[in-house]
Amino acid sequence: MLNITMEINRITTFIRNYCDKADLNSLVIGLSGGIDSALSAALAVNAVGATNVFGINIPYRNSHPDSAADARIIAQHLGIKIETIDLSSMTDSYFDAYEPKAEALRRGNWMARIRMNVLYDQAAKHKALVVGTSNLSEIMVGYCTQFGDSACAFEPIGHLYKTEVWEMSRQMNLPEKLIDKIPTADLWEGQSDEAELGISYKDLDEILCAITDGSTEMYAMETVKKVKKMIKNSVFKRAMPPTLERL
Amino acid sequence: MLNITMEINRITTFIRNYCDKADLNSLVIGLSGGIDSALSAALAVNAVGATNVFGINIPYRNSHPDSAADARIIAQHLGIKIETIDLSSMTDSYFDAYEPKAEALRRGNWMARIRMNVLYDQAAKHKALVVGTSNLSEIMVGYCTQFGDSACAFEPIGHLYKTEVWEMSRQMNLPEKLIDKIPTADLWEGQSDEAELGISYKDLDEILCAITDGSTEMYAMETVKKVKKMIKNSVFKRAMPPTLERL
Repeated sequence: MLNITMEINRITTFIRNYCDKADLNSLVIGLSGGIDSALSAALAVNAVGATNVFGINIPYRNSHPDSAADARIIAQHLGIKIETIDLSSMTDSYFDAYEPKAEALRRGNWMARIRMNVLYDQAAKHKALVVGTSNLSEIMVGYCTQFGDSACAFEPIGHLYKTEVWEMSRQMNLPEKLIDKIPTADLWEGQSDEAELGISYKDLDEILCAITDGSTEMYAMETVKKVKKMIKNSVFKRAMPPTLERL
Repeated sequence: MLNITMEINRITTFIRNYCDKADLNSLVIGLSGGIDSALSAALAVNAVGATNVFGINIPYRNSHPDSAADARIIAQHLGIKIETIDLSSMTDSYFDAYEPKAEALRRGNWMARIRMNVLYDQAAKHKALVVGTSNLSEIMVGYCTQFGDSACAFEPIGHLYKTEVWEMSRQMNLPEKLIDKIPTADLWEGQSDEAELGISYKDLDEILCAITDGSTEMYAMETVKKVKKMIKNSVFKRAMPPTLERL
């Protein structure tokens, strides 16, 4: 079991050390309205103080209005600034002109990457670093867009399973509404992480732990196989692009 | 000294193996008109054949017309398809609405990242992989945009210094015009790699080799120091975002 209080301290120090090393004292974070970015923002505030954290909400025109509302809730809760940058025209100008028939998945990946663009430009503006918001569950199964939501300066919650993100968020008294909502990337209507993954985070995290420990006997073989396949198929997302060695 | 013929074979096998592993047989490559992308495209053609390589030229409205012209020259030389996707509106719609005062460097980084977006979406469309075009000289000193031009599936020339890129390009009989032109990212008018780096590629490569070999006595101390600083300051660009270990 994780010692949550100790983890909060460890993460705070990790962020502070990274900022010191980079000689930057401000942080930019994309606030989606979800609990991962809410917790990451709370930890960022712990590390550098609320006045040095810049929240950015980056909706598309068909994003659910609750996402932006929840992003404002966490910003207000933490006392940090929040700005809205609408990515609709940057996205439509590509798809309308060149790829009008592109399906939802391609559009979703584009949006995740445009958000990265926006966050990195905002970071340049504020002389800040971009805070990652990925948790260990999604990193391990590759439930993220390469060079999109997985692109950042560092991952404060990248070693925490989703269920631990919930636990830590409760202990830090983050708004219940954000902790209890159904996890979604909100890239299209009705999207839900658990439906897309085909497994609940509770089950996924148990199986990921079991795979790490080498003790998967307790779980349905089919499910374990499926999770292992997701891990294997997403190795490239967790590594730098390969290069040949010089002979 | 590099055995160029052997290197061409090694790279071709490296690309083919990566495609096999990913179970994809097509490659997408951004053709800037420069020699790095020209050589990478030539090697891609060696590996999977001209009909399976999709060249994309992604100009901004103030990109030098020679860049697009040279991109067409190499595409024609290699017998590959080339498509033009103008990133002006995707870029202006952000800066005009939100950051009209952003300076050239921020706009340049944005453009490098938008190009990544476009290449990845085109790769999804063609069920293809994105070929990297970075050489070892720029990778080592961090002369690239993180999650922009450095984002790709693999780096076919990532182990070759710029001077070796020229050498290999000559041996492969790539168009003289592209080999002889002044290296530039063409992100703003008159930009030149060597002016920005403050050193010629010939000198840079010699010093990078000397640093790697631990024999820098022959070179001006100030220059060696400067190159070492560039290497040190760009470590983050050559690594995945750091994460805490689980205790």
